[in-house]
Amino acid sequence: MRIVIALGGNALGIDPKIQKQNTDLTAKYLAKIIKMGHEVIITHGNGPQVGLINLAFEEGSKNNKNIYMMPLSECGAMSQGYIGYHLSNSLLNEFNKNDIRKNVVSVNTNVLVDKDDDAFKNPTKPIGSFYSKEEALKFGCPVKEDSGRGWRRVVASPRPQSILEKAEIETLIKSGFVVICCGGGGTPVIYDNGYKGVDAVIDKDFASSKLATEIDADMLMILTAVSNAKINFGKENETDLKNVTLDECNKYLLGEEFKNGSMKPKVIACMDFVKNGENKKAVITDIEHALDAVNLKEGTIITK
Amino acid sequence: MRIVIALGGNALGIDPKIQKQNTDLTAKYLAKIIKMGHEVIITHGNGPQVGLINLAFEEGSKNNKNIYMMPLSECGAMSQGYIGYHLSNSLLNEFNKNDIRKNVVSVNTNVLVDKDDDAFKNPTKPIGSFYSKEEALKFGCPVKEDSGRGWRRVVASPRPQSILEKAEIETLIKSGFVVICCGGGGTPVIYDNGYKGVDAVIDKDFASSKLATEIDADMLMILTAVSNAKINFGKENETDLKNVTLDECNKYLLGEEFKNGSMKPKVIACMDFVKNGENKKAVITDIEHALDAVNLKEGTIITK
Repeated sequence: MRIVIALGGNALGIDPKIQKQNTDLTAKYLAKIIKMGHEVIITHGNGPQVGLINLAFEEGSKNNKNIYMMPLSECGAMSQGYIGYHLSNSLLNEFNKNDIRKNVVSVNTNVLVDKDDDAFKNPTKPIGSFYSKEEALKFGCPVKEDSGRGWRRVVASPRPQSILEKAEIETLIKSGFVVICCGGGGTPVIYDNGYKGVDAVIDKDFASSKLATEIDADMLMILTAVSNAKINFGKENETDLKNVTLDECNKYLLGEEFKNGSMKPKVIACMDFVKNGENKKAVITDIEHALDAVNLKEGTIITK
Repeated sequence: MRIVIALGGNALGIDPKIQKQNTDLTAKYLAKIIKMGHEVIITHGNGPQVGLINLAFEEGSKNNKNIYMMPLSECGAMSQGYIGYHLSNSLLNEFNKNDIRKNVVSVNTNVLVDKDDDAFKNPTKPIGSFYSKEEALKFGCPVKEDSGRGWRRVVASPRPQSILEKAEIETLIKSGFVVICCGGGGTPVIYDNGYKGVDAVIDKDFASSKLATEIDADMLMILTAVSNAKINFGKENETDLKNVTLDECNKYLLGEEFKNGSMKPKVIACMDFVKNGENKKAVITDIEHALDAVNLKEGTIITK
């Protein structure tokens, strides 16, 4: 099977030491799936990391006039280099330990978004430092109060339209390489008389779903902190979802069973992948159950 | 021809706006070479950029306890994402303008160095901020006075042994993609019971030479600020070098015609490439003469 595996935040870290420990652990689980002979493409988030990089330039520039403010798309590209380095190093070492004759490659990925995406009219994704209302309103860019912790800049989170490096990624997979790509959802670019980077962040689950469709993967696996999506979440009759169809997912979505910004986008990303092909399988689970989920024995499995 | 083109510092920039302007201009020259049908692999330096990233974390961490110090290998990996994003974007737009049906891909590259390389015993490459002697001596890591401007941390600059992603890079080239790789000489890793990142910087010309040998390129082109290497540099009888053999280069090296840290490592990188194969050509020139240099009409051309 060709499997796109999207790693959640807990597979990574902010502090470089902790992140490397986490990617070492993550690699142990991934190597087991790769050893089974599957073609594996690894994607990952970058929320905390891109925030850290952006903040370092922001705070650094206050101390030192030789430090420039770094736009968000450049920070996103940096986070792909950073996380790709840790993940590829951890995987390569795990392969060597387990006599897996595979090479790993981390591809800096650009993802096309629509310049007329509604998200640009209504930016909702908070990033960077917290400020007082007075400071924030002086920025001249969209800001929002975030969960009682202060005011933050907000940026658009447009839907991915296409992965610019999809042909390169497919070539690498076909040649037997394990590919790391679409880090942080990829660097967002619009097409407006040429490709241009934009201040935005792309949801990594949506980008992974788009990639999985474009490279005709058999399975999209979204790894998160829990083994299953749930209905009646937090109630007495809370139930793990196991095998679910698109129709059932739609019913649960209408019933608002899944939380915005958490399980809901993951379910929608899975549904998008499953409905765009035949015999496609999408799985939501945690990394401890990933191997069994490949064999359809664990996790929430969404099919047509 | 398969050509590895190593971009010098003037092809890039530190400030993200200026860097993008520079990569847009660089792409115009590179596109002309690619349009001729050559297989082109682009490598580049990262000295100022990796310094900027390292400094941003260093200065930022003074203001904000949520910012961590970032090791040099992680900063190098970030710079590959940053510069790769700009270069691939500029090239793709230039291809579209000129009806060149090519895709570009930026590969995060790891480069193996010898853990016993003498460079680790005698770190010489200055990086990061300038400090007073008193401050610098407290660091507990090697420091050095740099050109009267203050004291700086110095790191090792070991010789590249092998490009870890060489097979992936070769696969991409064979499939017709333009590849950007070995940014900043690549992220340095040693093998010591597993691959491990190290605090070091690799000379991008040496890394480009190693890559050119490993992927059996026909030509290594090192782009710099001048059209030719020179002998009797700065004297009345200063002369541009045009066609030179390895023997002639050796003679000039013994005569100390080339400056340390400037033209000398470029000439040595070219010689290493040329002597490791048959009919290999290495060229040193500036980007304005790159197209003519491919046709062996301009630049300093080194052959066996």
